[in-house]
Amino acid sequence: MSFRFQIEARDDKARAGRLFTPHGEVQTPVFMPVGTVGTVKGVPQDTLEELGVQILLNNTYHLYLRPGVAMVRQLGGVQRFMSWDHPILTDSGGFQVFSLSDLRKVTEEGVTFRSHLDGSSHFFSPESAIAAQIGLGADIIMAFDECTEHPAEYARTQASMEMTLRWAARSKKYFEEHKHEVPWFNDPALAKRRLERGTRPGTNDQTQTLFGIVQGGMFPDLRRESARRTVELDFLGYAIGGLSVGEPRPMTHEMVDAAIRFLPEDKPRYLMGVGTPEEIVHYVAQGVDMMDCVLPTRAARHGLLFTSEGRVTIKNARYAGDESPLDPNCGCKVCVRYSRAYLRHLYASNELLAQALNTVHNLAYYLDTMRRVRQAIQLGEFANFLSGFRAPR
Amino acid sequence: MSFRFQIEARDDKARAGRLFTPHGEVQTPVFMPVGTVGTVKGVPQDTLEELGVQILLNNTYHLYLRPGVAMVRQLGGVQRFMSWDHPILTDSGGFQVFSLSDLRKVTEEGVTFRSHLDGSSHFFSPESAIAAQIGLGADIIMAFDECTEHPAEYARTQASMEMTLRWAARSKKYFEEHKHEVPWFNDPALAKRRLERGTRPGTNDQTQTLFGIVQGGMFPDLRRESARRTVELDFLGYAIGGLSVGEPRPMTHEMVDAAIRFLPEDKPRYLMGVGTPEEIVHYVAQGVDMMDCVLPTRAARHGLLFTSEGRVTIKNARYAGDESPLDPNCGCKVCVRYSRAYLRHLYASNELLAQALNTVHNLAYYLDTMRRVRQAIQLGEFANFLSGFRAPR
Repeated sequence: MSFRFQIEARDDKARAGRLFTPHGEVQTPVFMPVGTVGTVKGVPQDTLEELGVQILLNNTYHLYLRPGVAMVRQLGGVQRFMSWDHPILTDSGGFQVFSLSDLRKVTEEGVTFRSHLDGSSHFFSPESAIAAQIGLGADIIMAFDECTEHPAEYARTQASMEMTLRWAARSKKYFEEHKHEVPWFNDPALAKRRLERGTRPGTNDQTQTLFGIVQGGMFPDLRRESARRTVELDFLGYAIGGLSVGEPRPMTHEMVDAAIRFLPEDKPRYLMGVGTPEEIVHYVAQGVDMMDCVLPTRAARHGLLFTSEGRVTIKNARYAGDESPLDPNCGCKVCVRYSRAYLRHLYASNELLAQALNTVHNLAYYLDTMRRVRQAIQLGEFANFLSGFRAPR
Repeated sequence: MSFRFQIEARDDKARAGRLFTPHGEVQTPVFMPVGTVGTVKGVPQDTLEELGVQILLNNTYHLYLRPGVAMVRQLGGVQRFMSWDHPILTDSGGFQVFSLSDLRKVTEEGVTFRSHLDGSSHFFSPESAIAAQIGLGADIIMAFDECTEHPAEYARTQASMEMTLRWAARSKKYFEEHKHEVPWFNDPALAKRRLERGTRPGTNDQTQTLFGIVQGGMFPDLRRESARRTVELDFLGYAIGGLSVGEPRPMTHEMVDAAIRFLPEDKPRYLMGVGTPEEIVHYVAQGVDMMDCVLPTRAARHGLLFTSEGRVTIKNARYAGDESPLDPNCGCKVCVRYSRAYLRHLYASNELLAQALNTVHNLAYYLDTMRRVRQAIQLGEFANFLSGFRAPR
C-alpha cells in the first residue's frame, strides 16, 4: 500500500489522524500551503521545514505550462525537482483552467483553453490531466473536475455535476491503467527512505493516490448526490470542491455538511481552497481533514498579517515606530527577531524581504493553529478550543 | 576605546587582522555586503549570520529618506532597527546624492538635491551628513566627500579634492563635538555584550568611528596629495573613494597604489564600491582591508551567478534540465540543496525565491573567497592563492 489513512482521535465530528504517503507522513487535520509553480513564493524549502510544513499543494496548471510535465518527469518528479523530500498534492488543473486562462470550450471530451502566459492553446481531458499529474509525480493527485461557476441555476449545476462524475470515472480508469508510470514508481532510494521513516512499503512499487472531488454547487441535494455517487466510484480520499467561490459562509458550511455525511468515515476528506484562520477551525469541526488556500501567502505579500490579536495591516503608519513583535504570542522566527516598525519599513519600502518575512509569519500562524487543533482533538477539548478561538472579523 | 584595529599577519603588502567595534569584531580583509535601506535585498538576517557576514554597509542616503534618521534614532539605531547585533558601516550619502538624486547645486557649504523617491528637496553638508550618520548609529561612519565625476579635467579634479579635504575637516570637527549623541552612547546592555564578547570596553561611553576618504580622480599626484593631507587630519581609518566609476582596471590599481602608500600601516584601509571576485583579491594584494559592492547582490537579482567555475547566467536554456548544483565546490545552502534546473525555473518564472537564493549563493561565494584570502595570508601563501585564483573573464 502506497497510501494509508488512520484516525487516532475523535472529538464529536472532528478527527485527528495520520496520512502515510510515499514521501512521508502527514498529521491531520492539516493545512497545505500553496506552492503554485514549485515554490511557496519567497520562502526557501528549509524555512518551510522549520515551520513544520508537512505537505505542499502544487498547481498542475502552472507546472504543466512551466517548466512542463516532461521536464519535471525527467528531473524525477516534483519532489526532487523542487528539493522537497516530503509529501506533495497536485490539484487537477481544473480550477485554474476555469479561473485563470482564456477559456475557449468545454465539451464532454474536455476543456480547450489558452495559457495566461503566452496565449498558446492547450487541451485538458480527464485522461490528459491525470497523465500530467502522473508525470509531475505528486503523492496525492485529484480527479479532473468542472468547478461550477457561482451563481449557477439548478439544471446547469446538475449537468455540470453529472459531467464531473463521468470525468471522475474516466480519471480513475486512466489512473489505474497508468499509475505505474509515475517517475518514482520503483525508485529503491525512495523505498529505502520509507523503511527508515517506518512507513513500511510492502514493495518497491510505489504509486500515487487519486482522490475524487464532490461538486454540486450550492444545492444540498446535488452535494449529497455528488458525494454518494463519487463514493460509489471508490477513491482512497474525497475532496469537496467548488466552494469558497463567493457564496456566504453559512452556505459553505451547509454544503460541506450536506456532502460530508455521505463520505466514508475511514477516508480522508479534503476541503479545497479554504479559508481564513477562523474558518478552517470550523471546517475541522465539521469533519474535514485537509485544507489548502492561497490566503495566508497571498495576503502576506499584500501586507495583511494574521495574529492571535487579530488582523494587522502592516503598511499602516501607526506601526512605523512600534518596537513590539508582530504577534507577541507567536514563536516564529519573524516574531522573535523583528519589530513591527521594521516590518512596516520593509513593506513601505517595497523590499523583497517584506514579502518573505510576512509569508513566514502567516504560514506559522496557520500551522500553529492546526497544531493546536490537533492537540485539542487528541485531548478531547476541541469544543473548548473552538469557543475560545478568536471570532472572525 | 570604541575602536581598535590589529594586524595579525602580513604577506607582502596584504594584511590579515581584526577590527573591534561597539557591535562586535570583524576579521579583515573583509567584504561588506550592501544592505541599502536596512536589508540585504531578499535575505533574512539569520541567513546573513549563517553565511558568516561580519559587517554590513547601509546607505545613509536611503535610510535618511526612509524611514528617516529621527525614526531610526528613536528605535535605538540601525543595528537594533534591523535586528542586526553586529557591526554596520554607513557611507556618507555623498555617492548616492551624486549618482541617484536629481542634483541641484553643489556649493562650498554642501549639496542641495532632490529625493529620487518623491522629488522633495534636501540639503547635505558635512555637518548634516555626519549628524545623520550619528543618528543612524552605525559603528563606522564616513566623512562627507564629493565623488568626482569621471572623466574630469585636472583642475576640476584638484578643486574637488581640495573641497573634499575641507569637508573632511568639517566632518571631523562636527563628529568630535557630537559623537556622544549616538543612540547607544551609554547603553549598558551593549557595554555588557562587549564584555561578554571579550572586546573590553574601558567605559560605558561608546562612540562611532569616523573614517576619512581619499579622492583625487584619476591623477596619481592628486591621489597622493589627497592621501597625505587626509592623514594629516588624523582619522582612525581611511577609505579610497571615487574609483570603479568607469575607468579601466589598470588605472584603478594605479590609483589605489598611489594612495595606499601614503596611508598609515596601522590603520584600516577601505576601498569603496569594488568589485568582481577576481578584482577584490587583487585589491587585498595591494594592502586593502575592507571593501563593499552591490555587485554580488545586484547581479544575483539579475540571474548572474559567480562560481568557482566561472560566471553562470542562470536564465540560459542550457540549464533547464541540469540536475547538477550551481557550483559543485560551494557548500552554501543553495548549492547543497537545489539544482541548476530548479534555479533556472525559478528565474524564468520570475519567482521571488530566485532572487533570494541567487543572492545567498553570490554572497556565499564572495564571503568564502575572503575566508580563503585571510587563511592564505595567515599561512604566508597568498601569492600562491592569487596565482591560482581564476582569472577575470
